[in-house]
Amino acid sequence: MKLGEVADRLRCRLEGNGDVDIVRVAAVHQAQPGDLTFVANARYLPQLATTRASAVILGRFKGAAPHAPCAVLHTDDPYTAFAHAVALFTRSAPPPQGVDALSAVASDAAIGADVSIGAFVTVGAGAAIGARTIVYPNVVIGPGVRIGDDCVIHSQASIRERVVLGHRVTLHNGVVVGSDGYGFARQKDGTHLKIPQHGDVVIEDDVEIGANSTIDRPAVGETRISAGTKLDNLVHVAHGVAIGRRVLLAAQVGIAGSTTIGDDVMMAGQTGVAGHISVGKGAIVGAKSAVLQPVDAGAFVTGSPAFPHREWRKASVVFRHLPAMKKRLEELEQRIVELEEKLAAWQTPKDR
Amino acid sequence: MKLGEVADRLRCRLEGNGDVDIVRVAAVHQAQPGDLTFVANARYLPQLATTRASAVILGRFKGAAPHAPCAVLHTDDPYTAFAHAVALFTRSAPPPQGVDALSAVASDAAIGADVSIGAFVTVGAGAAIGARTIVYPNVVIGPGVRIGDDCVIHSQASIRERVVLGHRVTLHNGVVVGSDGYGFARQKDGTHLKIPQHGDVVIEDDVEIGANSTIDRPAVGETRISAGTKLDNLVHVAHGVAIGRRVLLAAQVGIAGSTTIGDDVMMAGQTGVAGHISVGKGAIVGAKSAVLQPVDAGAFVTGSPAFPHREWRKASVVFRHLPAMKKRLEELEQRIVELEEKLAAWQTPKDR
Amino acid sequence: MKLGEVADRLRCRLEGNGDVDIVRVAAVHQAQPGDLTFVANARYLPQLATTRASAVILGRFKGAAPHAPCAVLHTDDPYTAFAHAVALFTRSAPPPQGVDALSAVASDAAIGADVSIGAFVTVGAGAAIGARTIVYPNVVIGPGVRIGDDCVIHSQASIRERVVLGHRVTLHNGVVVGSDGYGFARQKDGTHLKIPQHGDVVIEDDVEIGANSTIDRPAVGETRISAGTKLDNLVHVAHGVAIGRRVLLAAQVGIAGSTTIGDDVMMAGQTGVAGHISVGKGAIVGAKSAVLQPVDAGAFVTGSPAFPHREWRKASVVFRHLPAMKKRLEELEQRIVELEEKLAAWQTPKDR
Repeated sequence: MKLGEVADRLRCRLEGNGDVDIVRVAAVHQAQPGDLTFVANARYLPQLATTRASAVILGRFKGAAPHAPCAVLHTDDPYTAFAHAVALFTRSAPPPQGVDALSAVASDAAIGADVSIGAFVTVGAGAAIGARTIVYPNVVIGPGVRIGDDCVIHSQASIRERVVLGHRVTLHNGVVVGSDGYGFARQKDGTHLKIPQHGDVVIEDDVEIGANSTIDRPAVGETRISAGTKLDNLVHVAHGVAIGRRVLLAAQVGIAGSTTIGDDVMMAGQTGVAGHISVGKGAIVGAKSAVLQPVDAGAFVTGSPAFPHREWRKASVVFRHLPAMKKRLEELEQRIVELEEKLAAWQTPKDR
Repeated sequence: MKLGEVADRLRCRLEGNGDVDIVRVAAVHQAQPGDLTFVANARYLPQLATTRASAVILGRFKGAAPHAPCAVLHTDDPYTAFAHAVALFTRSAPPPQGVDALSAVASDAAIGADVSIGAFVTVGAGAAIGARTIVYPNVVIGPGVRIGDDCVIHSQASIRERVVLGHRVTLHNGVVVGSDGYGFARQKDGTHLKIPQHGDVVIEDDVEIGANSTIDRPAVGETRISAGTKLDNLVHVAHGVAIGRRVLLAAQVGIAGSTTIGDDVMMAGQTGVAGHISVGKGAIVGAKSAVLQPVDAGAFVTGSPAFPHREWRKASVVFRHLPAMKKRLEELEQRIVELEEKLAAWQTPKDR
Repeated sequence: MKLGEVADRLRCRLEGNGDVDIVRVAAVHQAQPGDLTFVANARYLPQLATTRASAVILGRFKGAAPHAPCAVLHTDDPYTAFAHAVALFTRSAPPPQGVDALSAVASDAAIGADVSIGAFVTVGAGAAIGARTIVYPNVVIGPGVRIGDDCVIHSQASIRERVVLGHRVTLHNGVVVGSDGYGFARQKDGTHLKIPQHGDVVIEDDVEIGANSTIDRPAVGETRISAGTKLDNLVHVAHGVAIGRRVLLAAQVGIAGSTTIGDDVMMAGQTGVAGHISVGKGAIVGAKSAVLQPVDAGAFVTGSPAFPHREWRKASVVFRHLPAMKKRLEELEQRIVELEEKLAAWQTPKDR
């Protein structure tokens, strides 16, 4: 595709020769002639000077415009242009439509138009799968599950009984949706009586869930992940959790039972949130935090336990110097003792 | 079912009309007429006033008895009553008994009475599965595995060679039992020689393991999870670990190799425990802790590294105010310098 | 096998009777007559005095040589001798060679000599599997995947389209290689546009990846795990990460996108590393750390955020005593006020 056409499709302003042929999208340090690359993060600007790419998608940076040794596609939104560019130049063949002969699909399951169901997939009684949904091999879909249109369910995923998935949902490999919540009632003899977990799980439209993440069902009521939310790998969502719209949870985050996460919340990796609390709309949680108290809408908290991020940054700097601070404190104590002794010595003669 | 009968079955004291029909158990804010709800946590008492439920299971709370706009089932143990109520009103149809025609069961495997084995299940040579155990689709059971009676093995679980499961064990989806422990011997050239992991894994009676958790086997000896212990999702148990009875490990906990966890221990989410140490009977570990030293029986520790929880709480409060504390220290230093100078100035004239 | 022959094979110096028959390797506290045990860690020396083993592999310890109630195999490298001993006395039967009739192998897949492919395995179009590689049941291998010789792919693993595995790679159960990286471009309406993830994943020779770990593919370029690296269970490697040779990542570690990990790095459990940074060759990261800044080669860092380990240890000790330190600071403030008042009182009369 000619660079000029690429620029049009990505809605970028072209600086350079639009007649160049573009065949691929590549990282800035790996790109070759014929490649389109991109720089959105100032960290990678130094690599731009030596790139062999034929063109670069370039965001705006503070200060002088960076020099590129190739044509430039200027944009205010380089990530979006990059997303469109990757989509333009890559294409993975979809799996064949139809139901693989080596699958086990219940006779009363409702399979939509142009669905693809791979080998060794199990679809339980009464399940329904929407149009154009792709189910890769070795997925297990339980009885009564409802899956919308245009979903992609990758291999080894487990969708337990009665779980509901909206449209355009993507489950990556090994995802579990609808496993039992961790609910037990301690008995007088110290044993733990299981509280049966028979509630619902609803995954709304446009949700994406990363590999080997787990979403539990509650005893009663529902666990819900709202539209447009994206979960990274190995995330744990406990029973009865309600996650809002457009939420981003990075890898290895864990949300304990019955907690509510507001719309547009972002959590960095390995963060944990306690049960029965609320994280307000638009809040941000820094990496590896333990959120043990409710978080206000729009707040940015970090730490274990978490508190406002700005304070946490300052406290963390002091933490590193705690031994020096302790030494200064001890020196002060010594100097005060000396002052006190001196004063006492002066005072005593005077009293004579 | 009439509310009076429900009260009898749950061993609760009924306050209100026992002739009401109950059809479902529901959360307090979602309940409708005909529903039984429950309030065990004071946090949810405000929602009780406006519930539309026909009846509520109510624990004891400090202060005046809360007002409920419906019949009340009084109990000292609301979680247990709730567990029984959910069991009473929900019933998921078990999968069909028998061995699915699309499974691969070794000819010498011993399959007990009334077992259910789903599609695409593999059962290895010499394996034994006890009576009434349910194996959901796409489970892999290795050679020589022994599984007791009344177990439930959910889809995508892997039970590796020679693993032993007791009775009434539940493995949720994607659980791995018997993968190789992480054991290597560093060679002089810097490479890592694998120490073969050929030991045993024993999961005793009434253990429940959450989705995508992993339990490793050791080189020699055994990894053991004792009776009645419950693990949440994405928990890691390394090679040679011994976990006692009735232990509770919340989601994303990790236990390093050869560590011993005593009976009745409880660990909150995302906690890690170092290898080759012992956590004493009944100890409690707070959320996101790093247990690097042995923990005494009955102790409650938190932090990274962990130390007594009460101290940790106080230290965490001070941590947040470290920048202010540092400023106070610097002010003190300044005031002491001034005092010292003042004294020096006085002293000097005197010496004249 | 006679103990004398065992000593020869393990290259140990024998102290005791070489005619004893050895039948098994066992842990020091569980060993019986006929067993060979080993002690490499001083922690277990007390158990040596009462072992019932017939022989012990014994490393060097500081101070007097420990007394063993049995024959001794002396070595400078007890872990390596132990690794060889376990290999000598344990032998798990490999699965049968050939392609199981209940698998779904694409007609154009290239299957090497003496390969074993288990039941319910899917091998996609154009995939290639090297000689003697073992693929356990219920594994999914995507189209275009290339797997080298002598690999072991355990059950429930997912190897996504076009992933490349070297020789002697081991993937444990439930491992996912090649799932989509977590890349989205925020749109003006707050929704997240998916950046298609079409890059490559390369797992080099002699890599071992623990159960339920996940390795993502990038949008462009590659994710690479270099030769001889070993990952424990539930590890997350994000898109575009480059991990060097002989790296050790313990359980539940997470590496964010585009980060580079140098050769011979070691990370303890539950550590996280931020995106777009570099961890230098030979660096060590302590347990549960959050590495938010680049780490120099050879450095040893710990903490959240991480800083030099020695400083972290000292700071952690002070942290525990922060409440006492705060009290001392307050006392100093009080004493300084008293000194200041005293001086002021003296000064005032003089001025008269």
